[in-house]
Amino acid sequence: MKKYVLLILSPDEKGLIYKVTSIIFKRGLNIDKNDEYVDSEENRFFMRAEFSGETDPLALLAEIRASLPERAEVKLEEIRPKDIVILCTKENHCLGDLLLRYDSGELEANIKAVVSNYDHLKPLSEKFEIPFYGISHEGISRQEHEQRMLECLAALKPDYLVLAKYMRILSPEFVHHYERQIINIHHSFLPAFVGANPYKQAHERGVKIIGATAHFVNDNLDEGPIIAQDIIKIDHSYTWRDMQKAGRDVEKVVLARALNLALHDRIFVHGNKTVIF
Amino acid sequence: MKKYVLLILSPDEKGLIYKVTSIIFKRGLNIDKNDEYVDSEENRFFMRAEFSGETDPLALLAEIRASLPERAEVKLEEIRPKDIVILCTKENHCLGDLLLRYDSGELEANIKAVVSNYDHLKPLSEKFEIPFYGISHEGISRQEHEQRMLECLAALKPDYLVLAKYMRILSPEFVHHYERQIINIHHSFLPAFVGANPYKQAHERGVKIIGATAHFVNDNLDEGPIIAQDIIKIDHSYTWRDMQKAGRDVEKVVLARALNLALHDRIFVHGNKTVIF
Amino acid sequence: MKKYVLLILSPDEKGLIYKVTSIIFKRGLNIDKNDEYVDSEENRFFMRAEFSGETDPLALLAEIRASLPERAEVKLEEIRPKDIVILCTKENHCLGDLLLRYDSGELEANIKAVVSNYDHLKPLSEKFEIPFYGISHEGISRQEHEQRMLECLAALKPDYLVLAKYMRILSPEFVHHYERQIINIHHSFLPAFVGANPYKQAHERGVKIIGATAHFVNDNLDEGPIIAQDIIKIDHSYTWRDMQKAGRDVEKVVLARALNLALHDRIFVHGNKTVIF
Amino acid sequence: MKKYVLLILSPDEKGLIYKVTSIIFKRGLNIDKNDEYVDSEENRFFMRAEFSGETDPLALLAEIRASLPERAEVKLEEIRPKDIVILCTKENHCLGDLLLRYDSGELEANIKAVVSNYDHLKPLSEKFEIPFYGISHEGISRQEHEQRMLECLAALKPDYLVLAKYMRILSPEFVHHYERQIINIHHSFLPAFVGANPYKQAHERGVKIIGATAHFVNDNLDEGPIIAQDIIKIDHSYTWRDMQKAGRDVEKVVLARALNLALHDRIFVHGNKTVIF
Repeated sequence: MKKYVLLILSPDEKGLIYKVTSIIFKRGLNIDKNDEYVDSEENRFFMRAEFSGETDPLALLAEIRASLPERAEVKLEEIRPKDIVILCTKENHCLGDLLLRYDSGELEANIKAVVSNYDHLKPLSEKFEIPFYGISHEGISRQEHEQRMLECLAALKPDYLVLAKYMRILSPEFVHHYERQIINIHHSFLPAFVGANPYKQAHERGVKIIGATAHFVNDNLDEGPIIAQDIIKIDHSYTWRDMQKAGRDVEKVVLARALNLALHDRIFVHGNKTVIF
Repeated sequence: MKKYVLLILSPDEKGLIYKVTSIIFKRGLNIDKNDEYVDSEENRFFMRAEFSGETDPLALLAEIRASLPERAEVKLEEIRPKDIVILCTKENHCLGDLLLRYDSGELEANIKAVVSNYDHLKPLSEKFEIPFYGISHEGISRQEHEQRMLECLAALKPDYLVLAKYMRILSPEFVHHYERQIINIHHSFLPAFVGANPYKQAHERGVKIIGATAHFVNDNLDEGPIIAQDIIKIDHSYTWRDMQKAGRDVEKVVLARALNLALHDRIFVHGNKTVIF
Repeated sequence: MKKYVLLILSPDEKGLIYKVTSIIFKRGLNIDKNDEYVDSEENRFFMRAEFSGETDPLALLAEIRASLPERAEVKLEEIRPKDIVILCTKENHCLGDLLLRYDSGELEANIKAVVSNYDHLKPLSEKFEIPFYGISHEGISRQEHEQRMLECLAALKPDYLVLAKYMRILSPEFVHHYERQIINIHHSFLPAFVGANPYKQAHERGVKIIGATAHFVNDNLDEGPIIAQDIIKIDHSYTWRDMQKAGRDVEKVVLARALNLALHDRIFVHGNKTVIF
Repeated sequence: MKKYVLLILSPDEKGLIYKVTSIIFKRGLNIDKNDEYVDSEENRFFMRAEFSGETDPLALLAEIRASLPERAEVKLEEIRPKDIVILCTKENHCLGDLLLRYDSGELEANIKAVVSNYDHLKPLSEKFEIPFYGISHEGISRQEHEQRMLECLAALKPDYLVLAKYMRILSPEFVHHYERQIINIHHSFLPAFVGANPYKQAHERGVKIIGATAHFVNDNLDEGPIIAQDIIKIDHSYTWRDMQKAGRDVEKVVLARALNLALHDRIFVHGNKTVIF
């Protein structure tokens, strides 16, 4: 029996749940999981349903669309492991953590490749038999470098790009190729400490807590929709290097948590915010 | 326009959401908030909906019941502030915290009275103009003491009894009068350290984290369904008195959080567990 | 037997602990608690000792000073409950929480008075028999208002001013009267969301965690040395009003924790940071 | 210049800090870090100092010992990376996490070998070029199996044995060979849910928080001195398998944190508790 996931983001109206569940019920499908949320201030309705059974998904999608307000966004997909590409630079903790989850079967995704602007993590990727593409940024323009990356990615067709401590800023042109498909881990509790060296900034400010933020990448550095955040407590005895070391544990866990939500189609993006079921 | 809350706990079947939402839609009512959860292992369906509009609640309830499996439990109520009675002994932090929330209008409930086996907290209750009933347990049997408590409570007709550090064990006979209506705060991270003096037990065991647990009271001491838990980190420098002092902050916050969930009909009890929307 | 607390902040040198403990030992005093920390980057030595016994504190202080580098700052005090004044505006949760701790004897301080620019919290203060001074800011200049506050405070001679949700900005002139003696609770995880309406800012940014920060007040709004921070997790379903409500629980606990550290002379301020023992 | 760490656990007396620091000072050594703690209830003094300089460590140790009460325990060591052996069974997350930290140079230890009762994790160990010894427990007695383990370990001479989800109970005989040298990760917030299948137990009890505990192994299962604990929040929607999956993230981080403390000689064990600097 096939399994599907349905995502609806629509202007709110009376009867939406009834209309959608009635279509599903009348086709004899079984709803395994269902969530709704209404943002009253924005008058938005969010619905996510997992269901199973035999159906013609295109016809079903058309019928659901027809029952909803005109400006509703609807997505209906068979549930399957997504394809991802991991981008990284030199630090091994986020990449390694994802590779271990992949190795144990916990990560429900296909890692198509690792792409990096340095070769430092080639041995690690190859230990887990993941193709590694080193695309150096040295001696070429940002534009040229991104062009080479895009060519490489075009062949891999990933559902998501995962920036696992990829330490270069992506241009809006690059980002537009993968709108809402790029997940980054930022090593601070955003919006505190945007930009470079957040641990140094945090050390200078004398904070008692540091954090990490996983977010979708959009045109504005560190300002994309936040998916997950977590923190750890520190004290005055931490140098910024200690913060960096301690921070790695929260970075890798937050990135994995955010990716897992994306892989299961549990994230809606609306404006600059996420709704997560 | 009136507001209602509907709670359904039912054996799971295909089409339950559709059936219930169709009844609500056809009566022209507006669903403001809707949550479902299916416990697949136990084959249980949980649904909570808030809706508004003009309707005959008894007729609506009857129609919903008729559409559901025979063994479904259904509750439909107009949304209103509940009546509570707070039981306490000598410590002021949980009682005081609830009184402050009441005073600022944050606690959406009527505190009908404070009942205690000592008079220590009478002045505090009276500062906030809440009737205080001191019912001493001294010189009388447990049975006799509980009898006096029950008489006092019978006149007050509370929706919930809140044990805000009430340091006596209630007999099953007493509990049966207020099944699923008594909320207790236990000063440990249950099921660790059941029984008396949990902070002393925690100190002896050398734990690095202490916690608090709010739960419904049932026949077995500290074994009722858990509603909310939280923790704070400690270290070797804490004596058990320090733990007790630090623990108060988590106790009062966890109790208030659990009570707030109960006041808004957001808790289902199934077996010895809670499902919370 | 008298109890003393000694605080030393000094350029670091070899033998400082030895020199200080030797003076204390030779006078037959007993060290009950001792902490040191060296900030190697800044070459600063921090030491805090509690000791007990009979001694001439002025002579002891002079001897310790003489043994230390010239630019060392030394403070030696008999341990005693400090005097505090609480400033507030309209919200009751931080003030009420401190009053309850005072009422139970947990707060080891004398609350000399509550001062507010509104009269809303007069009844609450009076419930706990604390003098309340309403000093309205309406119809007068900031300068004039602060002048009236300073006159009121001059008579009360507080060790610390506690801003328990005091919603006005204090001028540098005011702050200079109480350098490192004013503790504020800011309702965000600083340095995120400085300035007005942090919960609204947080809501707009779509964060998944909110926090509170207790800090000393200096000339720059929300930029003083941080004493304590804590957070709670939220999700998309929180309106900014919900955040505000949830945030109160973390605000009051963080403020009380920071005040407690100050009352026990456990905080050093160095530059814009704190070292806490 | 050489670096040393000094650990003292002694009955408390007046002047201990003075005596020890005076010996260090008079030899011209430089204290880089110093911590003390007095457990007043038990009348125990704990001191840990890191210092640097040229000295004869045996003579220094003798002089310090002579200055202390007879029953004092003193340890003085040159600071060096410790040797560890990791024991595991089938789950890869704790082992993999340690290997990644090792690979990046973050783990300041030599991993001498991985030892397991199954061969499942042989490929993972070998990816990182760590010798793997599979010592099956099948078809032989517990005694015989442990004998083979001990023979293997005797040749490796580890400072610490790290039980990275090693799913067999060690006999007291085995433990006595490595008193206070075996660190285990237990997948619950001890003392809740001792013994087998803690996540199943936690699921059954309906807790709202799960945790992990790293502890030294002693004769009594899950009752050794606790080194580190942490938790994550869950809700009713977690099956025990979901708890297990979520729990892995906290297990690996807590184990790494505890190991790091041991590797830097930051843990004292006194009775069944730890004091950690």
